[in-house]
Amino acid sequence: MKLVSYEIATPLGPRVRIGALDDSGKIVDLELAYRRILADAGATDPAAERIASAMFPSSMVAFIQGGRTTLDAARRALTWTRDHGELGQPIRYESADVKMLAPVPRPPLLRDFMAFESHLKNIYPRLGREIPPEWYEFPVYYKGNPSSFGGHCDDVAVPAYEEQLDFEFELAFVIGKSGININNDAALDHVFGMMIYNDFSARVFQSREMAVGLGPAKGKDFQGGHVFGPCLVTMDELPDPYALTMTARVNGEVWCDDSSGSMHWKIEDMIAHASRDERIEAGEVFGTGTVGWGSAAERGQALNRGDVVELEVSGLGTLRNRVV
Amino acid sequence: MKLVSYEIATPLGPRVRIGALDDSGKIVDLELAYRRILADAGATDPAAERIASAMFPSSMVAFIQGGRTTLDAARRALTWTRDHGELGQPIRYESADVKMLAPVPRPPLLRDFMAFESHLKNIYPRLGREIPPEWYEFPVYYKGNPSSFGGHCDDVAVPAYEEQLDFEFELAFVIGKSGININNDAALDHVFGMMIYNDFSARVFQSREMAVGLGPAKGKDFQGGHVFGPCLVTMDELPDPYALTMTARVNGEVWCDDSSGSMHWKIEDMIAHASRDERIEAGEVFGTGTVGWGSAAERGQALNRGDVVELEVSGLGTLRNRVV
Repeated sequence: MKLVSYEIATPLGPRVRIGALDDSGKIVDLELAYRRILADAGATDPAAERIASAMFPSSMVAFIQGGRTTLDAARRALTWTRDHGELGQPIRYESADVKMLAPVPRPPLLRDFMAFESHLKNIYPRLGREIPPEWYEFPVYYKGNPSSFGGHCDDVAVPAYEEQLDFEFELAFVIGKSGININNDAALDHVFGMMIYNDFSARVFQSREMAVGLGPAKGKDFQGGHVFGPCLVTMDELPDPYALTMTARVNGEVWCDDSSGSMHWKIEDMIAHASRDERIEAGEVFGTGTVGWGSAAERGQALNRGDVVELEVSGLGTLRNRVV
Repeated sequence: MKLVSYEIATPLGPRVRIGALDDSGKIVDLELAYRRILADAGATDPAAERIASAMFPSSMVAFIQGGRTTLDAARRALTWTRDHGELGQPIRYESADVKMLAPVPRPPLLRDFMAFESHLKNIYPRLGREIPPEWYEFPVYYKGNPSSFGGHCDDVAVPAYEEQLDFEFELAFVIGKSGININNDAALDHVFGMMIYNDFSARVFQSREMAVGLGPAKGKDFQGGHVFGPCLVTMDELPDPYALTMTARVNGEVWCDDSSGSMHWKIEDMIAHASRDERIEAGEVFGTGTVGWGSAAERGQALNRGDVVELEVSGLGTLRNRVV
């Protein structure tokens, strides 16, 4: 299933909704579809609304935290709409008619790793450094501000304290089941799904703050700088997460053409490491770090205002944003 | 006002409550006291419960997000109990009879700065480094896991991947009013209150992961490693946040005797910097970083299992924890 978060205008103000993409790519409003299923089974309108809104809250994190029950209900709602033809709004929307948000607009936590060796081999020599030996000992990460998320088709503004932005082409996965001290063998059972992540970066400020040793902060966390989308794809549609083709285009020109198979640190390694003596929660987002050639810095370049970055991953779609 | 979060046992399972300390140090359950005020003004019991639970939710963040309205209601509830003598449980509790939590048990974000120059002057030479010049240019910070919080009197366990812990004696402040691009003059208006922060650290692992450049993660975020308390004191009780005496004792021996006045980067600087092109939200927690001599590493030492650390700040109380 391909899940999305989106915003619609209502006479009572804007409302965030969660949906799933049908075979034609239209967004199905899961809560409204589920109300119809409940009504068909004899529920009154108020009871159907009460139960459906508990199953499909506006928060994707709260939905994920419902476990298999809410996920099964989402599948039923999607199947029901397929069997009931052209329902039109408000149950089905064209994505162009709504505001697309990050699929998980506000997770409890964002960890971002550095899993691709090729990116480091490209970037460290440009910084006059060798890859630190500790990088090969365990998967390191920083934590990003989960209130600074953006979505598919958002314009991303260069912050006032920076001249130019860079992009970072990453994969992201979302935790579906909480746990602590999870071993590698069990780790994939804790993954709910995957999505594309563009970790826009203010490179000059980032290098200044990282010189002090506490890692990146303002270099990454400016408003709307952590961009995810267009959808969150559940793991049943991704039988091999290490066989995803990854293509980045800047203004239509291919800058990166790689595969998720080139990850040195695997999803299992990241979950096992992060969960050592530290509970990870359903709804948290993990980024893999930049794939090789998945940034302008690796080419000695930066993005200009007006540049359009498209990140395409097989099975996950295409995430498009413009720098302004 | 001195606010606390605490947990009580009920026949329906454990419940988190928010309270305020009265003049004798007892905890007043704000929601129950407010129900009585509403009943005195003619509300039925169900209406009083409905309104009081909306004003005083179990989440301190949700309470703070209520703005002046909920804070004023808390003051009324505290005054009402003072005027109504010995009410006993469940309106008043001894802190020893409940489980004390971090005053803000799960904020949206934890930023931790490095504001005290004396700490750096003590610690960098031991690492064979000089203080980086960038430290004097802007206040740097890392972000901690806000799901790894502990409270007053909690035992803090050394994680399995570390031999010994260190403590870090810090101040913390909580954002009361959201905003973006806040200038220094307006910054203190955005502060709700202050509390004591012990940022327990796994020093050996921390230095290994920081060698890669992304800052601390497992060195800080192990279960219960970010300890706050005993209470969150509103700013009206702290007319000068730079005149607070800070005393740390390890097993009763004074290791640190300093003042909040020795901060190089001020609260105003931290808020102005963090909010540049990045929205900060009500309920977020900011740590100041370690005061000079507020850690064992500065003495070339570490804590042993069984050591008791007491951090005392004038106006904020004493935070006590044991390493196990």
